[in-house]
Amino acid sequence: MTYRDIVEKRRAINFFDPDRPVREEDVKEMIEIAARAPSSFNLQPWNLMIVRDPDAKTRLRKHAWDQPKVTEAPVVLIVLADRSGWHTGHPTVEKNWKEMLASGKMMPDKREWFTNATRSLYTWSPNAETAFAVKNTAFFAMGLMYAATSLGLETHPLDGFDHEGVRKEFKVPEQYWVPLLLAVGYLRPGVEVLPPKWRKSYDEIVVSFG
Amino acid sequence: MTYRDIVEKRRAINFFDPDRPVREEDVKEMIEIAARAPSSFNLQPWNLMIVRDPDAKTRLRKHAWDQPKVTEAPVVLIVLADRSGWHTGHPTVEKNWKEMLASGKMMPDKREWFTNATRSLYTWSPNAETAFAVKNTAFFAMGLMYAATSLGLETHPLDGFDHEGVRKEFKVPEQYWVPLLLAVGYLRPGVEVLPPKWRKSYDEIVVSFG
Repeated sequence: MTYRDIVEKRRAINFFDPDRPVREEDVKEMIEIAARAPSSFNLQPWNLMIVRDPDAKTRLRKHAWDQPKVTEAPVVLIVLADRSGWHTGHPTVEKNWKEMLASGKMMPDKREWFTNATRSLYTWSPNAETAFAVKNTAFFAMGLMYAATSLGLETHPLDGFDHEGVRKEFKVPEQYWVPLLLAVGYLRPGVEVLPPKWRKSYDEIVVSFG
Repeated sequence: MTYRDIVEKRRAINFFDPDRPVREEDVKEMIEIAARAPSSFNLQPWNLMIVRDPDAKTRLRKHAWDQPKVTEAPVVLIVLADRSGWHTGHPTVEKNWKEMLASGKMMPDKREWFTNATRSLYTWSPNAETAFAVKNTAFFAMGLMYAATSLGLETHPLDGFDHEGVRKEFKVPEQYWVPLLLAVGYLRPGVEVLPPKWRKSYDEIVVSFG
């Protein structure tokens, strides 16, 4: 499949086959492919919870507008955007710093510059920290969807859930924003996928001001 | 190229060939492929400004940490996340509503439900409106990068810029958040792309709490 094929094949399906499990190795491969997404300063502020257990899916569905696909999909990922992903002492920050030193791309006396640069980008507005974490995590999440398609899986990115309800139910620390839930599985036999919805044209997307 | 090949081929390059232009039809195709990205309620809260003019690139570079790639890349996209993309009366909202009615997926008496559902999702927290717009726009932006790769182009997503400086310089209305700039072009001859940076492993990505 070419990239265009994958983009066209990826659809947000509403009816998953509850009886066809998703292999653990496919979920792992999907995550590993998506993890090649870019992120500012390579901070990779994304994490996932993998929900497979029927009881946990029932608890998740309660906070997700009671949408049947939450329990019908064999796997639901709770996608997490780490808003502390740029903090001094965060394991990913420190690992990046060590790698930059080791590669010679940074000199030790640049640490203050590095700390200030990330702080200024991610705290200049009350929204900036969330926007940063969500942006990079959405790169990763888009990759999860396309990787799933390339592996023959179907997905549905869910926005319809009670953010704080999900966070508390699954004891997700406050540093995380939950940009989406991602249902993963196979299309239910006998269900026909509707034609794609309309999309904005090139001329509707490209703007200028002045 | 398989999807995995595209993911591995996509790299954030630092040195663009300033003498090799990017064809307009390639930019258009890249945008049209990426526009197939999913979005909550199909709201597609993304727009782009296409910066090609050398003078405009010089003005943009001033607000982007003076990074040479901003002027060296033949095309720089200012990626815009529309925080008003769910408002009643917004052209995309109203077009979606009409399409939902026409397809029979929604009955006219569901309008209040639709309006309340989107409002509650996108305003429940002071961060929610930005997070929503940025998440969906980042799906689109990740698609832009992979689409570029599939067309033989190179990209670099830039986070290092003064958000308000760029917004004011290009008269971008306040409803927009600017999640990234995206430089697009070809690798400068003679430049070697360094090996990819480390990525978090599956075990570093997957978490559970409690």
